[in-house]
Amino acid sequence: MIPTPLEDLIKTLGKIPGLGRRSAQRAALHLLTHKEHLHKLQHELETVQRETISCSTCGNLTTQDPCHICTDSKRDDGLLCVVEEVADLWAMERSGAFSGRYHVLGGLLNALDGIGPEDIGIPQLVSRVESYGYNEVILALSAGVDGQTTAHLIAQKLQPLGVSVTALGKGLPMGAEIDYMDEGTLSFALSGRKAL
Amino acid sequence: MIPTPLEDLIKTLGKIPGLGRRSAQRAALHLLTHKEHLHKLQHELETVQRETISCSTCGNLTTQDPCHICTDSKRDDGLLCVVEEVADLWAMERSGAFSGRYHVLGGLLNALDGIGPEDIGIPQLVSRVESYGYNEVILALSAGVDGQTTAHLIAQKLQPLGVSVTALGKGLPMGAEIDYMDEGTLSFALSGRKAL
Repeated sequence: MIPTPLEDLIKTLGKIPGLGRRSAQRAALHLLTHKEHLHKLQHELETVQRETISCSTCGNLTTQDPCHICTDSKRDDGLLCVVEEVADLWAMERSGAFSGRYHVLGGLLNALDGIGPEDIGIPQLVSRVESYGYNEVILALSAGVDGQTTAHLIAQKLQPLGVSVTALGKGLPMGAEIDYMDEGTLSFALSGRKAL
Repeated sequence: MIPTPLEDLIKTLGKIPGLGRRSAQRAALHLLTHKEHLHKLQHELETVQRETISCSTCGNLTTQDPCHICTDSKRDDGLLCVVEEVADLWAMERSGAFSGRYHVLGGLLNALDGIGPEDIGIPQLVSRVESYGYNEVILALSAGVDGQTTAHLIAQKLQPLGVSVTALGKGLPMGAEIDYMDEGTLSFALSGRKAL
């Protein structure tokens, strides 16, 4: 019933994370009825591909290589924070709690999907740590199975280099209510308890 | 911190209804890291503009004018359903409960935004009803202030033509629990009560 070119667009929009079928339908109709918005989107999809590149040092998205974080002389050269994706780097930066350097893996180990250490550049990370001599490598990876597997492998590879390898603390998120927390979080929080 | 072309894209994506700032960020990063998806989107934004048009009879989006609903000989020629937007037409079609013809207004009356009867094609609707001789015009407009104002004006203009003008029933949505319903819905439902 929906015209084919519109249906195709809805399907493609619907594959964007965060957009379900219904939102994609709405988005497509909105764009078709707001041509100036559609044209802006087309122009910017064009520009963003032409002008953004991956930082060859850390993997951040940038318009200049190396990126502004890698070239910022005010940041701590002793600390390296390893994240899965650029979005995670942005989240760390928003927190304002970290002022060292970053390393973006671009993925996590996953045996089922056939993603091994080479696919996420672990050899490059090891040689980066080897040549730059960081004091501490902080693994800011997700607290799921893939994140933990990846963290363990990285720790194993880096420990022989004599660098301290740490992971983000795990436990209750800010403002959490105990009875809304799942068992995993509660057991993380319990084993990570601290004296007051 | 986010590169300008990427920030521009995030802002434009964020103006699509249903996509907030955070989802737009995620969408932009996803598209940049999945180039085949981005290219597909670019191609389809192009195609959809070239190939879809508004049906000159009813206002539906279509690849051929008049659209397949207007040309479908199995539909009831005596019934005309007036909707605000193409998305509403789709919703009515999904319900499977209506098999007449449609008329898409493209908006609702709104004095604050300066949207008057001409802007939403009420004169065209009146002349369409006049020349086609429908038995009944069903107003399937939203149950808010603008929808009601628009419905009243349309009823006023159509009644002299001797056509029956009705509006969608109002009351409890399917599966509704009374204590979750707002006062407006409950008073609609009460005044629309039916003998069992």
